[in-house]
Amino acid sequence: MIPVQDALEKVLALVAPLEAETVALRDALGRVMAAPAIAGLNQPPFSASAMDGYWLAEADHQPGARLKVVEGEAAAGRSFGGTLARGQAVRIFTGAPVPADTGVVVLQENVTRSGDTITLPETLESNHNIRPLGQDFTKGESFHPKRRLSARDLGLLAAMNVPEVAVHRRPVVAIIATGDELVMPGESPGPDQILCSNNFLIGAMAEAAGAEVRMLPIARDDAESLRTVFALAQGADLVVTSGGASVGEHDLVGTVAAELGLERAFWKIAMRPGKPLMAGRLGDAAMLGLPGNPVSATVCGHLFLLPMLERMQGLEAGHRLQQAVLTDPVGPTGPRTHYMRAKLTPQDGALPAITAFSNQDSALLGVLSEADALLVRPLGDGPRAAGDIVGYLPL
Amino acid sequence: MIPVQDALEKVLALVAPLEAETVALRDALGRVMAAPAIAGLNQPPFSASAMDGYWLAEADHQPGARLKVVEGEAAAGRSFGGTLARGQAVRIFTGAPVPADTGVVVLQENVTRSGDTITLPETLESNHNIRPLGQDFTKGESFHPKRRLSARDLGLLAAMNVPEVAVHRRPVVAIIATGDELVMPGESPGPDQILCSNNFLIGAMAEAAGAEVRMLPIARDDAESLRTVFALAQGADLVVTSGGASVGEHDLVGTVAAELGLERAFWKIAMRPGKPLMAGRLGDAAMLGLPGNPVSATVCGHLFLLPMLERMQGLEAGHRLQQAVLTDPVGPTGPRTHYMRAKLTPQDGALPAITAFSNQDSALLGVLSEADALLVRPLGDGPRAAGDIVGYLPL
Repeated sequence: MIPVQDALEKVLALVAPLEAETVALRDALGRVMAAPAIAGLNQPPFSASAMDGYWLAEADHQPGARLKVVEGEAAAGRSFGGTLARGQAVRIFTGAPVPADTGVVVLQENVTRSGDTITLPETLESNHNIRPLGQDFTKGESFHPKRRLSARDLGLLAAMNVPEVAVHRRPVVAIIATGDELVMPGESPGPDQILCSNNFLIGAMAEAAGAEVRMLPIARDDAESLRTVFALAQGADLVVTSGGASVGEHDLVGTVAAELGLERAFWKIAMRPGKPLMAGRLGDAAMLGLPGNPVSATVCGHLFLLPMLERMQGLEAGHRLQQAVLTDPVGPTGPRTHYMRAKLTPQDGALPAITAFSNQDSALLGVLSEADALLVRPLGDGPRAAGDIVGYLPL
Repeated sequence: MIPVQDALEKVLALVAPLEAETVALRDALGRVMAAPAIAGLNQPPFSASAMDGYWLAEADHQPGARLKVVEGEAAAGRSFGGTLARGQAVRIFTGAPVPADTGVVVLQENVTRSGDTITLPETLESNHNIRPLGQDFTKGESFHPKRRLSARDLGLLAAMNVPEVAVHRRPVVAIIATGDELVMPGESPGPDQILCSNNFLIGAMAEAAGAEVRMLPIARDDAESLRTVFALAQGADLVVTSGGASVGEHDLVGTVAAELGLERAFWKIAMRPGKPLMAGRLGDAAMLGLPGNPVSATVCGHLFLLPMLERMQGLEAGHRLQQAVLTDPVGPTGPRTHYMRAKLTPQDGALPAITAFSNQDSALLGVLSEADALLVRPLGDGPRAAGDIVGYLPL
């Protein structure tokens, strides 16, 4: 048995960041930039008023000063154009270019206006209410965050006049469930059959993690059926199977994948649930063989599939443990890291509380659906008491 | 000025959960169910082996017992079919139906096999390694979580033989940016112009929150242009404008929307950044008028737009504050709730640390893009010291 961290390194070695493609800014939400974007202008491109009010020269910014408001105004998109003499002020609106580099914007609510005359207050604000040219960013500045682009990042890129961005291509993931016992939802299962849920579960996990998913037909437990379905996976960046990767006599996936050229790696990983994991390179694609049990497949998916997808998209790949406080004692773990299905509860002024489900049977999809965390019990960890701080992976 | 909570109640009163539509299970990720799904079968549909091993009658489950392995086997999808006499055992694999209701599965690694004889260990497991019929869920059981469907929920629904689900329709959101000063990314801004970023920012926020977004052309600061663009919003469930909703003389949006039948509500909200918010019903649609400043628009979007979208999708709508520990002191707040752009840092064994950006100018998109939280400073809150626990909204 190899530790989870070793297995993670091995599966990550099978993949690399995918090449760049150019997408319209509108379509870049959640994507990861593959090259820097360069600001096409200064922001603001001119010194601009931060408020609605009156612009005046600095020399006229005196307590109680009376100033004549000139004809015209400065609005967002329409500068004033003229020049002011001493003792004059001009109406200005938020976002409008200021008439000259030095000057002050006095808020409209802070002056008294009578006809074309304004009177400044006795106590002046120290703030000039002007946003200097290039305060936010300057022309030529580059932007290349190593994260999924957020709505706010798209706003910044738009402001930089970047209409399209180079992002890592989305991984194409082919999903293959295997097993004679499986039927698809909507079909009528025979007496010994069950519904295929892994396709939907693993497919949706991959999709939520940024992959483009191809859901392939169920492969049966015979070599011919497996070969047929593997052929349909052609062109995918990653082929994910579930089932048939164990050590049982009905586990043909490894055999058939090997025939098709899989440089097969097969590890017993010191984890539960999880069983053995199969992985390797299959032609141009990486392959990951998950257990058939949906709960084990989900746990292995979080531990291995999601980091692979992160790396392929140019993200830092790994397990980002968070912390919570145990509500109930848990027993010691054995020689395998245990990923217990658990529920988080917010606590006032403290880390969230975490409670492991009492039934940890890996066949329970109902428990899996209710869970929002995997409580991580490290290899060889002793019993833990209520109140202990423990690590978890959010689901 | 009205408190943020009052404004939230008012905007939520403008919308209701949208009607149900039926989607394929494959397309239901992130959607919210509008009616319960009913399990079409028991899971497991038969008592099943939880492991690879040998099935035997309970009476034969004795320390050191020697049993004859019969011809045939029970595999997932293929039951054994025969019956066993006393002293006999049958090979069984994970997921296979057990030959009879009472019995035990002994793990293959725990027996010694010689020819067609197995010998049980001297110390027997108490676990029978059998998953009883209906352990996960039973036929007719209903499932209707009040949350966005996760990948795990889709797995559960698949296992229940639910090929399609009734979900609340996605809100169609029309996004209108207004202002003479705006140009779209890829265009060349004139000397007084800036790039339109709100369309991208607010559009992506809405899309990430489950909306179907229609990005409309920029409306200029004249009534005719506004009427034209409002006409393009026909059929949307929610029209979101940005800019032109302030009290300045160039703010035509309210006037034109009123002409078009907006039952206009316009509130000064006791918050910063944010300025006034306009909202109302415009024919069949709700309308929300956000400030033109992208940072203010983002904050108002988080406080008002996202809860509206939650309610329209059948989710509980509101502000879910989380907690963090201040790294640096912050001054007192005035008569307005202050939403400060801030950065979170994980801390070992404690709540995350939160640091407000030193420059809180609401024109800074660079700061907004780096921020991952809005530090919430309540109305009239005093100064806070480093180490104090404060509330935040995740961005």
